[in-house]
Amino acid sequence: MKIEKRYKKKIILNFTINIFKKLNLSRSNANLVAKHLLRADERGVWSHGIVRLPIYTERLEKKVANPRPKLRFKKITNSIYHLFGDNGLGFIIAQNGIEKCVKLAHQNGIGLVAIKNSNHFGMSANYLEYAAKKNCVAWVFTNASKALPPHGAMAAFFGTSPFGFACPTKKKNKPFVLDMASSSVARGKLRFAAQKGIKIPYGYALDKFGKPTNDGLKAFNGIMLPFGGMKGAGLSWMMDIVGGIFTGANHSGKVKNAINDFSGPANVGHLMICLKTNLFQSHSTFLEKIEYGIKKAKKLKKAKGFKTILHPGEPEYNCSIKQKNSILLSKNTIVELQKLASKYGVKSPFND
Amino acid sequence: MKIEKRYKKKIILNFTINIFKKLNLSRSNANLVAKHLLRADERGVWSHGIVRLPIYTERLEKKVANPRPKLRFKKITNSIYHLFGDNGLGFIIAQNGIEKCVKLAHQNGIGLVAIKNSNHFGMSANYLEYAAKKNCVAWVFTNASKALPPHGAMAAFFGTSPFGFACPTKKKNKPFVLDMASSSVARGKLRFAAQKGIKIPYGYALDKFGKPTNDGLKAFNGIMLPFGGMKGAGLSWMMDIVGGIFTGANHSGKVKNAINDFSGPANVGHLMICLKTNLFQSHSTFLEKIEYGIKKAKKLKKAKGFKTILHPGEPEYNCSIKQKNSILLSKNTIVELQKLASKYGVKSPFND
Repeated sequence: MKIEKRYKKKIILNFTINIFKKLNLSRSNANLVAKHLLRADERGVWSHGIVRLPIYTERLEKKVANPRPKLRFKKITNSIYHLFGDNGLGFIIAQNGIEKCVKLAHQNGIGLVAIKNSNHFGMSANYLEYAAKKNCVAWVFTNASKALPPHGAMAAFFGTSPFGFACPTKKKNKPFVLDMASSSVARGKLRFAAQKGIKIPYGYALDKFGKPTNDGLKAFNGIMLPFGGMKGAGLSWMMDIVGGIFTGANHSGKVKNAINDFSGPANVGHLMICLKTNLFQSHSTFLEKIEYGIKKAKKLKKAKGFKTILHPGEPEYNCSIKQKNSILLSKNTIVELQKLASKYGVKSPFND
Repeated sequence: MKIEKRYKKKIILNFTINIFKKLNLSRSNANLVAKHLLRADERGVWSHGIVRLPIYTERLEKKVANPRPKLRFKKITNSIYHLFGDNGLGFIIAQNGIEKCVKLAHQNGIGLVAIKNSNHFGMSANYLEYAAKKNCVAWVFTNASKALPPHGAMAAFFGTSPFGFACPTKKKNKPFVLDMASSSVARGKLRFAAQKGIKIPYGYALDKFGKPTNDGLKAFNGIMLPFGGMKGAGLSWMMDIVGGIFTGANHSGKVKNAINDFSGPANVGHLMICLKTNLFQSHSTFLEKIEYGIKKAKKLKKAKGFKTILHPGEPEYNCSIKQKNSILLSKNTIVELQKLASKYGVKSPFND
C-alpha cells in the first residue's frame, strides 16, 4: 500500500455515518458529525478530521459520551440562551448552539449561546463558517483538556483551545475565518521533530527542566508553549474563563482528556457570540469594505518567500476546492479505520 | 538633573488637567483624560501614560481633534447602541462608551456599543477595569493607524491594536485584565536594540528586504511583526474588521497616525461587548471559580527563572500599588512637559 491514498469523499462519509449509527447515533446526528469531520479533511485541517474518528467512537463505546443526548435550551433573555449538552458529541451540541445563536442574532441583532456538558467539538471553523454564511460576525470560544501552561509555569493547565472568529466576505463560500489553536505548534509536529532530530524555534516549548529549548526531542519530553509567549497564554486563560467558568462547564484543568481519560464526561464548555453584519450600516456596505481591505492587503509588497497574501480562511478554502470530491488518507489512518470497520461490523471501503 | 525623578501624582494630575483646560476641554473631560493617562503610568504601562500628552495636545492644537465633542448615542436595539464620537479624544468617547455598555449589560444581560469618529483611546485597560469592577465580563476592541503587515507582507497595514478582555476576580480592585498589543514588541524596544546593537529574537521583525532578522538596527529600519506570527496577524486583521469596518470607522490602513498625520480626523473605531457575570450562575459562584483557577495556577511547577505565576492584570496591579502616590518621570518626559507648560502658559511643577 502506498503511504497515502485518495478516496471518494462520499464513500468515506457513508462509512463514517455507518460507524456512528452502529454506536447508536441517530441518522441525522451521524450525518452531522461525519460531515463536520470530513469538512476538516477537506479544508486541510487533517488534525481535526477523520483521523480522530477512533477517539469519538471510543468515548461512545466506553459510555463516557452520550449517543442520544437530549439537548435543552434555557432562555435567559431574548438574546441569550444556555444550552445543556447532555454529554453528547460536541459536534452535535455546538452545531445546535450556533444555529440558535445565528437565529437570535437575526431576530435581535445579537445572540449569545453558552454551552455546558459538551465534548470536543472538532474544528471550530465548522461553526464559524455556518455563522458567516448566514451573514453574521461571530466568535466561537471553547475550553479544552489541559495541555498548555500559564506564563511562567511548566505544567499543563489550559487547553490548546482555538480562538475562533469569522465574518462574511463578498464571496459567499469563502468567509474570513480565523480558527487558531492557542498552542505555538501542533504536538504532532513536535513528535515529528523529535523523531527526525530537527531543531525547532525557541519559544515553542520548554524542556522537562522548564528551560526554553530548540531541540525537538527535549521539547517533546517537556511542555508545549502557547503561541506568542505570555500573550497566547493569556488568550488561553481567557478561553478557559469564557468557555469553562462562565458557561458552568468544567474549567481550570478539569476538562477530561478525550483521548485517555474515560473516568466520566469531559464537560467541555463553549461560548458563541453572533452579531448581524448590518447593525450599523447595510450588509452590502459591510461586504464592500471587507472586500476593499482584502484587495488592498493583497497588493502590499510581499515579504521574502511569499508570492501572495491570503486572508484567514483562504488557504483552507483553496485546499477545500482542490479536494471537492476526494480526500487523502494516510496509511496509518486507513489501518485505524479498518480496525473500526471490523470492530463495529461495518463494511470497509478500504480493502483493496 | 537625574535620569528619572519621582513626582506626586496629584501634582502631575493637576498639571495635566490645566493643560487640557487651556486646550478648551471641559473641566470634567480634562479630568477624565488626565486620570486615564496617569493610570497607565501607575500600572507601569509607561508607553501609554503622560509621555503621550504632547501627542494629544498637538492634535487638539492643530484642530484635527475636537476638544468639545457632542457625543451622540443611536439606539439600535435594547442591548445595542452606536456611538458617534464627533472626533473627541478617544479617552472621553471610550469612557462614555464603556459606561453605556456596562449599563446595557446590567439591564439586558449583554451590551454592545460600536463607536466611530473616535481617536486613540490610550490604555485599553482603563475601560476593561471599569467594566470588570462593575461585575462584567468584557471585550474592548479598537483599530489603529497602520503599523503591522498582514502575514506574508512587508508593508504596514494594521494597527498594533490591543486585544482587550477582562472579568472580575474575588479581589474587587484586582480584576483579570488582558490588554495586549498585537505587535510582538514595542517599537520603542526595537529603537533601543538598534541604538545598543542588541540582538533581538527572530520573529519580531523583518529587515527592509522583507527577510526575518535578529539585528536590532535592521529590524528598526524594516518592519515590526505581530506577536505569534500569522496568528497575531489574524487577530490584528480581526480588530480592524470589528473595530473599523463593522463600526463604520476608518479601516484598512486609513486610520490616521496620531503622531504625524494632521490632515484630518483619525476616525478610529472601537467595539465593546459586556456580559453580566451572573447570566448562567450566581456572581459569587463565578468569582469562586475564578479564584479557584488563579490559586491552582499559582501552585503549578514554575518554569526556569520564574518564582511566581501571575494572572493577566496582576503585574500591572502590583505596579500600581507601589506607585499609589507618586510616579516616575524620565528626564526626556520632564523636558517635554516643561515645553508644554511654557507653550500653553501653565505653571510648571517641574522647575527645580
